[in-house]
Amino acid sequence: MTDSPRLYLEDLYVGQRFVSASHALDADQIKAFARQFDPQPFHLDEETAKDTFFGGLAASGWHVAAITMKLLTDGGAPIAGGVIGGGAEVAWPVPTRAGDVLQLESEVIEITPSRSRPNRGMIVLRSETRNQRGEIAQITTAKLIVHRRPNPAP
Amino acid sequence: MTDSPRLYLEDLYVGQRFVSASHALDADQIKAFARQFDPQPFHLDEETAKDTFFGGLAASGWHVAAITMKLLTDGGAPIAGGVIGGGAEVAWPVPTRAGDVLQLESEVIEITPSRSRPNRGMIVLRSETRNQRGEIAQITTAKLIVHRRPNPAP
Repeated sequence: MTDSPRLYLEDLYVGQRFVSASHALDADQIKAFARQFDPQPFHLDEETAKDTFFGGLAASGWHVAAITMKLLTDGGAPIAGGVIGGGAEVAWPVPTRAGDVLQLESEVIEITPSRSRPNRGMIVLRSETRNQRGEIAQITTAKLIVHRRPNPAP
Repeated sequence: MTDSPRLYLEDLYVGQRFVSASHALDADQIKAFARQFDPQPFHLDEETAKDTFFGGLAASGWHVAAITMKLLTDGGAPIAGGVIGGGAEVAWPVPTRAGDVLQLESEVIEITPSRSRPNRGMIVLRSETRNQRGEIAQITTAKLIVHRRPNPAP
């Protein structure tokens, strides 16, 4: 977590942008995630991966998604009350490899105050997870629940 | 991995359904994933979670997504060459809690042979990740790359 101020619904505006910290990925992390959640040859072993669709070891897309969430919670989306998603769309335009360093650029693209719950609203945050070559490893379009600033105690 | 036959593009049809194995989730798994990828109070500690949006410890949505992938690779989507996704849409209608047992029901909802690459195509697989109460914990709509059956060697 960073020390940057945490933002409430009324602090956000369409077009607002955030840049995250970065995450360095290595082969051990790729294999450890894969063993637990996505034990397919192209995520587990460099040699076996060569003859697969990926042509070499690649991170599970869900691993990239998890790292993206880590970067969002670690200051990449400085939202008061936390990063609470109701759903998301993800796409993986290029594979993520051992040695890649991932960083997010995010933008608020929609803000919808709740009609039924006056103390909160929904935003759509679009994040690009880029590697050190500037390639987009993941595009995430997430619906997040954001609280309004609480009234001061009377 | 199961011993069930692995399916190529020509083995699949719209409406085809698969049922996965199940995964029992506990608080330790929830917290371990959260420490690594989603270190927010409602995923880390039962007591602190009580005063949050979730009203108690809940799994990260990305943890549920990772478990869903594990169940897909473990026979839930018996596709030859593996479960290779280009992107997905996920929604989390209800929180997932410690003690939940998750299982998938998946259905092929679209099949699109590739025009440019005759040896493969794209399918859309819709999966419901249900808990032991029958509630849908995650809906996943994933685009998967599926290979055609290779020609026998001449």
